[in-house]
Amino acid sequence: MPAPEHMRAAVNLVWECRTLCMETLYDHCLVMGGPHVAPDHVKAMTDCIQACQVCADFMTRGSDAHAVQCAACAEVCEACARSCAGIDSPQMQRCADICRRCAKTCRDMSRATVAA
Amino acid sequence: MPAPEHMRAAVNLVWECRTLCMETLYDHCLVMGGPHVAPDHVKAMTDCIQACQVCADFMTRGSDAHAVQCAACAEVCEACARSCAGIDSPQMQRCADICRRCAKTCRDMSRATVAA
Amino acid sequence: MPAPEHMRAAVNLVWECRTLCMETLYDHCLVMGGPHVAPDHVKAMTDCIQACQVCADFMTRGSDAHAVQCAACAEVCEACARSCAGIDSPQMQRCADICRRCAKTCRDMSRATVAA
Amino acid sequence: MPAPEHMRAAVNLVWECRTLCMETLYDHCLVMGGPHVAPDHVKAMTDCIQACQVCADFMTRGSDAHAVQCAACAEVCEACARSCAGIDSPQMQRCADICRRCAKTCRDMSRATVAA
Repeated sequence: MPAPEHMRAAVNLVWECRTLCMETLYDHCLVMGGPHVAPDHVKAMTDCIQACQVCADFMTRGSDAHAVQCAACAEVCEACARSCAGIDSPQMQRCADICRRCAKTCRDMSRATVAA
Repeated sequence: MPAPEHMRAAVNLVWECRTLCMETLYDHCLVMGGPHVAPDHVKAMTDCIQACQVCADFMTRGSDAHAVQCAACAEVCEACARSCAGIDSPQMQRCADICRRCAKTCRDMSRATVAA
Repeated sequence: MPAPEHMRAAVNLVWECRTLCMETLYDHCLVMGGPHVAPDHVKAMTDCIQACQVCADFMTRGSDAHAVQCAACAEVCEACARSCAGIDSPQMQRCADICRRCAKTCRDMSRATVAA
Repeated sequence: MPAPEHMRAAVNLVWECRTLCMETLYDHCLVMGGPHVAPDHVKAMTDCIQACQVCADFMTRGSDAHAVQCAACAEVCEACARSCAGIDSPQMQRCADICRRCAKTCRDMSRATVAA
């Protein structure tokens, strides 16, 4: 298990990423249309929202299996970051940025097996 | 992507596993008490319920990232199966059995990258 | 609490509704575009998917509070049915139909306080 | 729709309530045992965690149906507060307190139909 303060910081970032993705999908993408509502992009955003949820909940419960969910979340966030980065708008770049940071943190948490 | 009929059969089994784990946790484990409500066991059941949810939803959406969630779900189901198998009651053995079958199917779906 | 067999039939219908809404949103609406991806319609479908989830889970757990979630789900399903009915395609009409049936069942379950 | 700043404050409180209930259920109740793992109490906590999730997501999406989910969440939080208040431990009283505050805020949001 990672140290509690690392875990809590990670949970906060994962929730921040989930919230920004959700607000962006419903308040920005659906309103803008075009490439913002391409099926693969909407699926990538939806996948990210759901993977973040699960990853944060596993960490909050202190489940032994949090590492596997963090690893899965890292991959899903990276895919979402790529999808966001390919759409030319400042909001999508903000979303890509937090997805990349969330992916990095989840990757770190998936490897942290000893409290430090 | 796996073939649609394999995907649908997998989704059905994953939901069946999730439903049995949920019914078992709330109607059996909480009522029986003792080892049935040991923190690690309740977490393992809760993890399984949530991992199955996400895995089924990724497959239902036809998300490219379903493989990574299926792989994560397989690990979580195996851990739940071990936890259930360690408790001496017929209901827990039924739960262990479906978790093992669900894990095997999720493992298969995580590797199926070509429609067959 | 409603009788177990009524509860189980209701849970099955609610899951069926959730699955059809999810498949329709990701495989049909996002592909068709236009009114199928209008923000209010996508929100109505997403709301329905999530309300059905919660309603089914409360019934599966046998929670005393299932009645309030069934009543909420009924309203959300009715709103989704109206949104679907306003879009001219056979798939949306199928979706409207199951949302209406789900709403009726959830309404019934929200009122069933005595096992019958 | 309530004013955006009221909505955001409400979402934050609902998430805070959900997180405390989740941490309390898995780190405190399951460890303490006895009345802390009575089936009705665990169901009340689980109901609260899930109702808060849905309520927060409906508000975050800006869904028209947020009022009905806020009303449902208020009832579920009140039931959880009563269940927590009946267990003699400081952690359960903290949990009861945030559930009561969350219920009040959700009740307010369910009635706020005009931006103020």
